[in-house]
Amino acid sequence: MTTKPERPDRGVTLADIAREAGVSLATASRAMSGARGVSAATTRKVREVAERHSYVVSPEASGLSRGSTGRIGVLTRHIARPFYAEALEEIESVLAGHGLDTVVHCVRTPEDQRSFFERLPVRRKVDGLVVLALPVTPHEKERLDLLDVAVVAASGQTADYPYVSIDDAEAGRQAMDHLLMLGHRRIAMINAIDPNASEWPIELRALAYTRALDRLGIPVEDDLFVRVPWGADGGTEGMERLLSLREPPTAVFAHSDDLAYGALRVLRRAGLRVPEDMSIVSINDLPMSEVLDLTTVRQSAGLQGRLAVETLLAMLAGEPYEHATITPTRLIPRGSTAPPTR
Amino acid sequence: MTTKPERPDRGVTLADIAREAGVSLATASRAMSGARGVSAATTRKVREVAERHSYVVSPEASGLSRGSTGRIGVLTRHIARPFYAEALEEIESVLAGHGLDTVVHCVRTPEDQRSFFERLPVRRKVDGLVVLALPVTPHEKERLDLLDVAVVAASGQTADYPYVSIDDAEAGRQAMDHLLMLGHRRIAMINAIDPNASEWPIELRALAYTRALDRLGIPVEDDLFVRVPWGADGGTEGMERLLSLREPPTAVFAHSDDLAYGALRVLRRAGLRVPEDMSIVSINDLPMSEVLDLTTVRQSAGLQGRLAVETLLAMLAGEPYEHATITPTRLIPRGSTAPPTR
Repeated sequence: MTTKPERPDRGVTLADIAREAGVSLATASRAMSGARGVSAATTRKVREVAERHSYVVSPEASGLSRGSTGRIGVLTRHIARPFYAEALEEIESVLAGHGLDTVVHCVRTPEDQRSFFERLPVRRKVDGLVVLALPVTPHEKERLDLLDVAVVAASGQTADYPYVSIDDAEAGRQAMDHLLMLGHRRIAMINAIDPNASEWPIELRALAYTRALDRLGIPVEDDLFVRVPWGADGGTEGMERLLSLREPPTAVFAHSDDLAYGALRVLRRAGLRVPEDMSIVSINDLPMSEVLDLTTVRQSAGLQGRLAVETLLAMLAGEPYEHATITPTRLIPRGSTAPPTR
Repeated sequence: MTTKPERPDRGVTLADIAREAGVSLATASRAMSGARGVSAATTRKVREVAERHSYVVSPEASGLSRGSTGRIGVLTRHIARPFYAEALEEIESVLAGHGLDTVVHCVRTPEDQRSFFERLPVRRKVDGLVVLALPVTPHEKERLDLLDVAVVAASGQTADYPYVSIDDAEAGRQAMDHLLMLGHRRIAMINAIDPNASEWPIELRALAYTRALDRLGIPVEDDLFVRVPWGADGGTEGMERLLSLREPPTAVFAHSDDLAYGALRVLRRAGLRVPEDMSIVSINDLPMSEVLDLTTVRQSAGLQGRLAVETLLAMLAGEPYEHATITPTRLIPRGSTAPPTR
């Protein structure tokens, strides 16, 4: 490409581009938006012509109604945590493919969150909002209603908005049944409490723990159910508490991979072998879990993000969409689980 | 808070809010923007009045010149990689603190990147751009110049724009000197090649490797310098190649933590002990490195993001700023390094 960029020629329309490239308006539109069904050669030709005129698709022309902002907001409590980062990357990818910009709003504290919702009504700066793994209170819902934008929840179930989520109770069952099938009977759970995180998935996973034990008539012991702060440090604390028991468990179900990482660290420091001395299973399958050889129940943050955006785009386009989309989970057996040796 | 949200009263000005709250206009402004120097009680009072009228600060009133978009773009090649995610979270935090929105543009492939820059000139949708760990070509710079927005580079050195970065050669020296001080002489480097990643830091770290060996008169052996794709799988491949040598190294300097994680996986599978059989050091100190007990040279992605945004805000405000800001690195000795036993 040797053409020098010029000042954009604002008078050129897509019809002009199509004519000059010798294709139909529809083909030019598809070539510009990167839609499928247009050959690479045609796409290149159309874009070369467009480039020569510094022509780009305006948000208004890209499938949304006139007056739209061309932006979608993502409301989240975390960016740097791997699950959230993966979902966000996929959300941005889908939106960019539709010529839409992604505006990230990270509310780190309850105060951030309150402030975000208070400021909402007079700042209609987005056409829609993806609420990522964050429960919306009735008061917050009222504020969102004022805004009058489409809202979808990703990775969280809510009656108020269409949502995409895993079935947390089923994921928990898959993890627990794996330990039970291996013959473990003295199983602990390290559960996460996080004032900044949604409460529902935590409780559904804990429910799966007690249900699985109940089914086999195994009493649930208070000492074997530990609640710790979210993250690797929480997992460390949880495993330290379990190793402090007179009779530690033979296996641990960790609420999520981050907790399992911290638990594995304690076992390594204690000189205990995994899985011989202790089995451990969790939920997520973050990228590091394969490296750490952790048995876990896989969910896809990216898929949940992608399907949430697609639901949102269907709402904006006035097309039919599902209120509830459940994405699958499945056990990924690795080296951190084996039959008990004690 | 029991006040019910009402339809926003668009006629209310900040002066009205200030009058009703019984404070000066300046105090009301500071309270609304969350600036320091206003008591919690005053902030609460002002925001309560503002909330009653559903008043929020408009971007135009929040310190930027009139006509500004109130948005800052972040251009990056990754969101989900921990380094990028941490920088992005910090960038969003600083911008949100200034009442500005963060628009993320993730260019995954060279084609994405080309498309982003081609579309730039007629879409002035942001007031400024943070280019995160991504080199800008002269052609791309021409496109950015057309846009006429402030640009800052985070985590990457460039003559074209103000930047915030570590000194990669110095970080590499810190890693290598640690291995040399421990007595290692047969040291390998696992270096990253990534067609989607910037080339400069890679080369500066490789330069530090050869320079450190040169200083001690240790010949650089081609076999001990392996180039692999970025990420844990690259590190796995690199360590497999090093273990395939007739005489493997006693220590490895990995270009970055992700590579070290993959290398550690191979050592575990091979039944080799770290650090007894092999020492390993890298650069980054991602959150998992503490969990994995990896010796590494710490840099802060968050700090580089924060300082880049602060530089950008200074540019936008017409205040003085530094062209080059170097953030510190330092060795974090952990359990993955020890004197050689062979």
